[in-house]
Amino acid sequence: MAVGLHNLPELLPVAGLRLGTARAGIKYPDRRDLVLIELGTGTSCAAVFTCNAFCAAPVQVAREHLHGGAPRYLLINTGNANAGTGEPGLRDARACCAAVAGIADCGPHEVLPFSTGVIGEPLPIAAIEAGLPAAWEALDAGGWADAAHGIMTTDTVPKGISRQVEIDGQSVTVTGIAKGAGMIRPDMATMLAFIGTDAGVAPDLLQRCLQRAVQRSFNRVTVDGDTSTNDACVLMATGRAPLAPIDSEGQAFETLCEAVAGVCEHLAQALIRDGEGATKFVTVEVAGGRDADECLAVAYTVAHSPLVKTALFASDPNWGRILAAVGRAGVRGLALERVTIHLGDVCIVRDGGRAAEYTEALGQAVMAREEIAVLIDLGRGAARERVWTCDFSYDYVRINAEYRT
Amino acid sequence: MAVGLHNLPELLPVAGLRLGTARAGIKYPDRRDLVLIELGTGTSCAAVFTCNAFCAAPVQVAREHLHGGAPRYLLINTGNANAGTGEPGLRDARACCAAVAGIADCGPHEVLPFSTGVIGEPLPIAAIEAGLPAAWEALDAGGWADAAHGIMTTDTVPKGISRQVEIDGQSVTVTGIAKGAGMIRPDMATMLAFIGTDAGVAPDLLQRCLQRAVQRSFNRVTVDGDTSTNDACVLMATGRAPLAPIDSEGQAFETLCEAVAGVCEHLAQALIRDGEGATKFVTVEVAGGRDADECLAVAYTVAHSPLVKTALFASDPNWGRILAAVGRAGVRGLALERVTIHLGDVCIVRDGGRAAEYTEALGQAVMAREEIAVLIDLGRGAARERVWTCDFSYDYVRINAEYRT
Repeated sequence: MAVGLHNLPELLPVAGLRLGTARAGIKYPDRRDLVLIELGTGTSCAAVFTCNAFCAAPVQVAREHLHGGAPRYLLINTGNANAGTGEPGLRDARACCAAVAGIADCGPHEVLPFSTGVIGEPLPIAAIEAGLPAAWEALDAGGWADAAHGIMTTDTVPKGISRQVEIDGQSVTVTGIAKGAGMIRPDMATMLAFIGTDAGVAPDLLQRCLQRAVQRSFNRVTVDGDTSTNDACVLMATGRAPLAPIDSEGQAFETLCEAVAGVCEHLAQALIRDGEGATKFVTVEVAGGRDADECLAVAYTVAHSPLVKTALFASDPNWGRILAAVGRAGVRGLALERVTIHLGDVCIVRDGGRAAEYTEALGQAVMAREEIAVLIDLGRGAARERVWTCDFSYDYVRINAEYRT
Repeated sequence: MAVGLHNLPELLPVAGLRLGTARAGIKYPDRRDLVLIELGTGTSCAAVFTCNAFCAAPVQVAREHLHGGAPRYLLINTGNANAGTGEPGLRDARACCAAVAGIADCGPHEVLPFSTGVIGEPLPIAAIEAGLPAAWEALDAGGWADAAHGIMTTDTVPKGISRQVEIDGQSVTVTGIAKGAGMIRPDMATMLAFIGTDAGVAPDLLQRCLQRAVQRSFNRVTVDGDTSTNDACVLMATGRAPLAPIDSEGQAFETLCEAVAGVCEHLAQALIRDGEGATKFVTVEVAGGRDADECLAVAYTVAHSPLVKTALFASDPNWGRILAAVGRAGVRGLALERVTIHLGDVCIVRDGGRAAEYTEALGQAVMAREEIAVLIDLGRGAARERVWTCDFSYDYVRINAEYRT
């Protein structure tokens, strides 16, 4: 199931971007697994990539090509991550770029490759080359929904959203798609997100816009969102909307940043809602910290605790596990008697122990919900942070035990 | 199941220690849940406790009493952790000590209380008081095996071991028991271990002996072994063996330290072998690091990865998940092309990718075993560390989802 996620909403075209999806048979027959995105001339492109020391071959090549100039095409395959593949993997990633250059009128360095799927298998480059013409033929401004399907791996639903905002009296569109490999902690199997806007934005500002958005979205869906071997998030600004390019900070930039961040937050939440085996969508918010770091340390410790996650799965208000996770988060000098913990609107911990008014029935009522908020106040400062996570179910084990079978 | 753990071996008495176990009905009727240990006069006692900021009431009281002088009794209850219980919890822990003082000829400050079980429920002090006389009556030098049963919670088998070593021509006994709440990462529900020896050891040396042993045993069974709300490990030295008290470092001290460490390693491994839902016993060894810290960071990242653990459960040699975990362990400047990874004696990663000689069948053969070693060489130094862990199964989720039902 995908908690609270329903049909893919209408994805608005972004002038200057075309998307084509094909069935290349990379891992499974007859499945959309190859996506080509064409960036109109003059499009700015910003990206953030995984911090994993063993980043995949396509990440290395994409970084290098992005550094070298403005890309004209993104090529994304699922079914194979081309990670842990050594020197041959790099050759394969470059071969993908060359294949696009061969069909389109561009150089290989104007192509960014992205791969997602199983780690350590050779990339089936022949299948990709064979499937590419169909993706090329399919290029269309209305291709977002097909592309949202085409980048899925173990996702159970496609993920995408559009926002429109007004900047300088003109309507600007932001459309984004993402895939999560449905991982409960996207720490290796390649979260990918592609976001486009028809606003024009100077490259350095576009990068800043993306980083701000990622910080409060993809980097808040449990701690390892930024450390997979293949994770990447790309923001493209085509400049086709009838307004002046955004080349300085100010109201127009802020409005665009809010829209991009909104799209990223929706997509990041969607990854968690469709987390492997997820039956609950959980917000862990930590307030009253001395700084953001200690709030995040507590939030992530709670969000990653298998004991907390299995209690959430069981709808069991076993708040002792939350308490224990807070206590082991490594916050120096934390005073238990100043900590309060709420499950939704129910106070469970106050004055160093169970809140006087707490009853099991009250806790049970919150835990029975599909969307649960855990609010922890450390009582020692003004910092506040929030992460999103899901529960830990039988299906998580099943999906990950059977992943390659 | 408990991987490779069979019947409880014979537990040798330790002159100067007597143990009594009773059924106090603390959480379940007719279950051994209360253990009293009597320390003969002159016994030295050392202990290490959890680092959790929210340590339980009995931990706070035990620390205080141990600091005040030589304890005469330890009282351990299962079924209730008396953690997250605030000021009333402290009163209850002190009431346990007073109850022992009332029945034995000692002061309350000569009693150390220990509790394990559910967090956040009031300790049923009346049941403990009512059960205490039976534990008192049962005090016996041969009571170790009953006590090993009496401290169990979700453990499926009792855990204990004896070692005998020769010091100055005399036989010295070390006997220990432990319980793990069968947790895959003993991070809150109260790992407890009690170890006795008839050697005589000066208190500061005994503390050093215990810390050395814990460092290579209980502190190596996944990272949070030292941060539960109730974790405690106690070493008692009665001085009843016919040899001079050990009051300085030297051969006698080293021999005793090795014996104590051996007992602790057996017990620490036993906790993992009986980990909740465990079907595999896994050693993660990291060599070639610049220092112990980076070796441990890598070892723990691998040992805690839910993706690695579910692959182990599935006997799936999905080595990409191990590679990805190594890559995200936060080791700065790690060069993938210098890293090698072995599954048992099979090399899976070399030169930045899958080893040339690796085949799925070779990996499969190792993964099918019940005991698996993962050996990672970082290729950048001489440090080496090792941790023990287990896999992640359906039963882990079941046990923890149903824990309170």
